[in-house]
Amino acid sequence: MTQYKMDNLDKSILHALMDNARVPYAELAKKFEVSAGTIHVRVEKMKQANIITGTKVSINEKNLGYDVCCFIGINLKNAKDYPDTIKRLEALEEVVEAYYTTGNYSIFIKVVTRSIDHLQDVLINKIQAIDVIQSTETLISLQNPINRDVTP
Amino acid sequence: MTQYKMDNLDKSILHALMDNARVPYAELAKKFEVSAGTIHVRVEKMKQANIITGTKVSINEKNLGYDVCCFIGINLKNAKDYPDTIKRLEALEEVVEAYYTTGNYSIFIKVVTRSIDHLQDVLINKIQAIDVIQSTETLISLQNPINRDVTP
Amino acid sequence: MTQYKMDNLDKSILHALMDNARVPYAELAKKFEVSAGTIHVRVEKMKQANIITGTKVSINEKNLGYDVCCFIGINLKNAKDYPDTIKRLEALEEVVEAYYTTGNYSIFIKVVTRSIDHLQDVLINKIQAIDVIQSTETLISLQNPINRDVTP
Amino acid sequence: MTQYKMDNLDKSILHALMDNARVPYAELAKKFEVSAGTIHVRVEKMKQANIITGTKVSINEKNLGYDVCCFIGINLKNAKDYPDTIKRLEALEEVVEAYYTTGNYSIFIKVVTRSIDHLQDVLINKIQAIDVIQSTETLISLQNPINRDVTP
Amino acid sequence: MTQYKMDNLDKSILHALMDNARVPYAELAKKFEVSAGTIHVRVEKMKQANIITGTKVSINEKNLGYDVCCFIGINLKNAKDYPDTIKRLEALEEVVEAYYTTGNYSIFIKVVTRSIDHLQDVLINKIQAIDVIQSTETLISLQNPINRDVTP
Amino acid sequence: MTQYKMDNLDKSILHALMDNARVPYAELAKKFEVSAGTIHVRVEKMKQANIITGTKVSINEKNLGYDVCCFIGINLKNAKDYPDTIKRLEALEEVVEAYYTTGNYSIFIKVVTRSIDHLQDVLINKIQAIDVIQSTETLISLQNPINRDVTP
Amino acid sequence: MTQYKMDNLDKSILHALMDNARVPYAELAKKFEVSAGTIHVRVEKMKQANIITGTKVSINEKNLGYDVCCFIGINLKNAKDYPDTIKRLEALEEVVEAYYTTGNYSIFIKVVTRSIDHLQDVLINKIQAIDVIQSTETLISLQNPINRDVTP
Amino acid sequence: MTQYKMDNLDKSILHALMDNARVPYAELAKKFEVSAGTIHVRVEKMKQANIITGTKVSINEKNLGYDVCCFIGINLKNAKDYPDTIKRLEALEEVVEAYYTTGNYSIFIKVVTRSIDHLQDVLINKIQAIDVIQSTETLISLQNPINRDVTP
Repeated sequence: MTQYKMDNLDKSILHALMDNARVPYAELAKKFEVSAGTIHVRVEKMKQANIITGTKVSINEKNLGYDVCCFIGINLKNAKDYPDTIKRLEALEEVVEAYYTTGNYSIFIKVVTRSIDHLQDVLINKIQAIDVIQSTETLISLQNPINRDVTP
Repeated sequence: MTQYKMDNLDKSILHALMDNARVPYAELAKKFEVSAGTIHVRVEKMKQANIITGTKVSINEKNLGYDVCCFIGINLKNAKDYPDTIKRLEALEEVVEAYYTTGNYSIFIKVVTRSIDHLQDVLINKIQAIDVIQSTETLISLQNPINRDVTP
Repeated sequence: MTQYKMDNLDKSILHALMDNARVPYAELAKKFEVSAGTIHVRVEKMKQANIITGTKVSINEKNLGYDVCCFIGINLKNAKDYPDTIKRLEALEEVVEAYYTTGNYSIFIKVVTRSIDHLQDVLINKIQAIDVIQSTETLISLQNPINRDVTP
Repeated sequence: MTQYKMDNLDKSILHALMDNARVPYAELAKKFEVSAGTIHVRVEKMKQANIITGTKVSINEKNLGYDVCCFIGINLKNAKDYPDTIKRLEALEEVVEAYYTTGNYSIFIKVVTRSIDHLQDVLINKIQAIDVIQSTETLISLQNPINRDVTP
Repeated sequence: MTQYKMDNLDKSILHALMDNARVPYAELAKKFEVSAGTIHVRVEKMKQANIITGTKVSINEKNLGYDVCCFIGINLKNAKDYPDTIKRLEALEEVVEAYYTTGNYSIFIKVVTRSIDHLQDVLINKIQAIDVIQSTETLISLQNPINRDVTP
Repeated sequence: MTQYKMDNLDKSILHALMDNARVPYAELAKKFEVSAGTIHVRVEKMKQANIITGTKVSINEKNLGYDVCCFIGINLKNAKDYPDTIKRLEALEEVVEAYYTTGNYSIFIKVVTRSIDHLQDVLINKIQAIDVIQSTETLISLQNPINRDVTP
Repeated sequence: MTQYKMDNLDKSILHALMDNARVPYAELAKKFEVSAGTIHVRVEKMKQANIITGTKVSINEKNLGYDVCCFIGINLKNAKDYPDTIKRLEALEEVVEAYYTTGNYSIFIKVVTRSIDHLQDVLINKIQAIDVIQSTETLISLQNPINRDVTP
Repeated sequence: MTQYKMDNLDKSILHALMDNARVPYAELAKKFEVSAGTIHVRVEKMKQANIITGTKVSINEKNLGYDVCCFIGINLKNAKDYPDTIKRLEALEEVVEAYYTTGNYSIFIKVVTRSIDHLQDVLINKIQAIDVIQSTETLISLQNPINRDVTP
C-alpha cells in the first residue's frame, strides 16, 4: 500500500476529528470553506489509507478508578524468551503497552492499576510469577503533564 | 466529585464505545438486552462522572508518516528546573507524552518522529538546545507488540 | 474499619505519648486544658482505631553494641523466589527491615550488626548462603543525622 | 562512658520491655524468677548505660493516614553541600530518616506521605526546590514484610 | 539522488573490489562471464550512485605502531555543547571515529594510540582538557575478532 | 617480524595512498621530489612490513542501502561462552565488528542494517536467538561526524 | 592479644624502618636521641605486637616487566560461590589482591600482567574460564600518582 | 635504561628477598648452590636495573590500628580538575593509593582509616571538602583474602 500524501486540508480535518469524532461534516465544511462532500471524500481517503482506523470514546483513567500508572523494565534470564513472555504479558489486562527497545531492558511495559496495593499484587503475583523473568524495575508516574496525540 | 460506581452494564457499554464510538445505541441496547433509553442514561452518567470525556478518531501513526517512536530519559542540571523544562517541551510537537517518575530521570518523555534523521534533529536542535538539560538517554522502540486501553 | 478522624487534641496527645509513653494523663490534661477523662477517652479511641498499637521502651542501638547499620539491595536469580526469600531472611535476627520496592533490587533490607566483621559473617555465611540470591549490594550508613517518627 | 556488659537476664528484661513498656515489674520478676527489686535495679542500670532511653507509644503509620513510604537517593551538585542539605531536609516533616552512606547517593532518606499526590508535592515543591540538589531517585515501598527492632 | 538499484552482478563486482581494488576488469569479466565493458559500465554506475567513493590502501594499525584501540564514552556538562565538542575532537588525530548515539553518553568515540602511556596522555592532556567535558569512560579493546565491511 | 621504522617520506606516501590507492607513482614522485623508483621501493617495504595489506574500493554504506548503524553490548550468561559466541556472531553478515573490551559487556559489536525493521529482525531472530546470550543493549548511531583512518 | 599502644618514638622508628629496613639501630638512636638499646627494645615490642611482621625488598613492578595493572570487578552467578572462587583465583599468580567489598561486585581483584595481550589471556583463558563467573568489568590503571604505606 | 633480562637464579633470589630482606647471602648461596659472591653480583644487578628499589619492614595495618580499608571512586565536576585534585588528595595521609583508570570514575583511591567514624570524618571533612568533587562512591573492604606481591 503506497502512503497517502496528505495536504493541509486533510491535516486540518484529521486534527478536528482527533479532538471530536462526532463533529458534523457540515460544521467542518463551513470551518474549512469547502463542501461537505469534500470533507466526506477526504475522510474516506484517510480511512482507505488506514490513517483513520476508527472512532472511540476518550476516557479518563483516574475517573475510571485507575490511580497508578507506571513503566516497568523487565529483564529476562534469556534474551530468547522475549516472544513467549510477550504472550504471557498480553494475558494480563493491567499491561496496556509493551515495547521492545534499544535500551538495557528485555521488555519495557506500561501498567495501570487501581492502587499501590493492586500494583504490588500485579508485580508479585502476576508479572514476577512468569518464571523466565529475572528482575523488574518500576518507574511510577507521579505526574503526567503532557499527554497528546501526534500532530497530523 | 464523588466517583461514579460503575456496574457491569456500564463497563460493557464503555467497552463497546472504546472500540467504536459511532455504534448506534439501539445496537448496544439489543446486545445488552436493555432499552436504548437505558444505554443513553448510562452513557450520560459516565459523561457526567468524567469517565467518558469525548470521542475521537483513532489513527495509525505509521501510516501518518511517523516511523520512529522512542522514550527519552532527560537529566536536568538542577532538579528545580523541572516545571520550566516541561513548558519548553510542551512547545515541541514531537513530544507526545511527558512523565515525572520515581526513577533516576528528571523527566521521562515519549517522542514520535518521521525518521531517524528527524529524531536526530529533534534531539540535537530542539531538546538538547534547552540549556538546563544536562543529558538525555534514548530508548528507540523497535517493536510495540501490546498497545491497548485499560479495561473498564 | 473506617479510619478514625483525628482532631488537633488527638494529635497533641499522640505527639506527647510518642515522646514519653509513661507521662501521667493528669499532666497531659493540664497541658492541653482538658479533663484527664478526656485524655483517657481520646487515647482509648486511638487504640481502638489501631493508631496506637502499644508502648515500648526506646533503645539506643549503639549502646546495645550494634555499631554497624546498613542497607542491602538483594538481586534474586528469579523474581518469583521473592516470597520464599523473605521467609529465609526473617529467620536472621540481624535483618530488622525488609522492603519490596519499585527500584531495581528484588528485595531491599536493613541490617544491624555489632561490627564490620559481624557484617562480613552475616553477608557471606547467612545472606549469600541463601542459594536463590544472585548478588547483593551493601550501603553502610556512616552517619544517621535524621531519625524520627512521622508527625501525627 | 564504658559500655554496660549485659547478661542474659538484662536481655530478657529488655526484650520484654521492647514489646510492652507498661508491663509491671512484678510480672517480669515472676516470669524470670527474680525479685522485683532485681528487675528495678537492672532497668535502672540499662537506663544509666543509655541503652534504654525512654518509652514511647507504638503507632501504625497506615492507620495514621500515611499510605506511602519510600526511600529517596539524593545526588548533590557538590559533595560539600551535604551538611547544609541535611539542615534543609530536617525542616521537612515528611523526611523521617536520613543517612550518609557508602553508596553512590550523596544522601539517602526515608520519606512517608499520605498519598502518591502528597509524595509528588514533597518531591517537586519541597525536596527538589533545594537548589543544591541535582537529582533524586525514588524507591517506593510496595510491601514491608519485615519491620522489627534489633534483638538485645 | 534516487538510490541505484543494484543487481547480483553489481554486488559480485563490488564484493571483489572491496577485497582488492586493483584487480583487472578483464579478470572480473572472466569470473562473472560478462564482457570487460560490462564490468566498466557497472563500476561507473556504482561510482555515479556514490556507492563506490574511491580506492584506498588497506593498512594494519598494529604494524603502523598503533597498539591500543579503545572506545570512549564522553559526558558533557551541557548537552548543548555537542556541536562545539565535535569540532574540538576533530582536531585530535587520535580520534578516528565519533558518534552521536541513543545511549547515555553525550558523544561516543573511537581512539587509537601507540601505547597505554600515549592513551593516558591523550585522555588527560587532550580530551579531558576540553572544559565542557564532565567525565569520560574508556573501554579498551583487548581483542578484535571480527572486523569487516558490510556485505553488498 | 621486527617493526619497520617509517620515516617522513614513508608516512607521506602512505597518507596519499590511504586517500587514493590508484594514484600513479610518478605523481607521488613529483609531489615528494624523489624518483618513482624510490616510491616503488618504499611501498614495497611497507607491504613487506605488513603495514600496507592491500587495496580496496571505499564505499558509502548509506548509498549501499545500509541506513542504520549501531553498537550492541552483549551480556552472556557465562563469561566462558565468549569464544563460541564470537563464532556464532561471525556467521551473521550484519555484524561487521566485534570487540572484547574492558567494560562491563561480555562482547561489544557493531551492526549495520538496512532499516529499523531489519535491526529488529537481526536482534530478535538472530542475535538473541543465540541461547547463551542473557541480554543486549543497543546504541543506535544518529550521527557519525568523524570517520577516518589513523594518521601514519 | 591486646593492642600495643605506640608512642611517638615507636612511630618515628617504624616510619624510618618502613623507608629502609637495613638502617643501623645506632643511626636511629642518634637521630631520635635515645640509646641503641632503646631502639632495639621498641622494635622488639612492635614485632611482638605483630605490628612489624618482617622485612622485604621493595620492587619496581614496571622494571620487573609488569606493564599493566588493573582492577577487575567479578560478578558470580551465585553469591554463595564466593569462597570457592577465591581459591580458584589464589592459584593465578597474576591476581595479587582480592577483596570482598560492600559494592555491587561479588569479588574485586587487582591483577598485574606483562602486557595488554597478557591481560587478555588472563581474562579469557584463566579468569573467565572459572565457570561460576558470570561477568567481569576491568578498570585498567593508566596512571598511579599516589602509592604509599599508611602513616604509623 | 634497557630492561635487565632476569634468569631463573635472579628470580629465585628476588623471590627469597621479597619474603625476607635480611636473609644472609650465605644462606641463599647454599640454597641455590652458587657462591655468595654470585648472590651479591645478582642482587647488585637487580638494584642497578631498579628492579630492587630498597628494603622495608612489613607491617600489619590492623595491628597498627587501621581497621577500615576501602576503595573510593571520585567523580569530578570537570574532568580537567584531575591534576589539581591529585595534589589535594596527596596531602591526606589516609589516602594511600590513587589511580587514573579507564572506568567511569575520575579518580579511584584506596583509603585506610582507624574506624568507621574516622572514615566518615575523612569523607565528609577532608575528601568531600575539596570543592571540585561532585560525588564519591565508597566500597568498604569486608575481607581481603588475597594480598601478595607479583611473582618475579
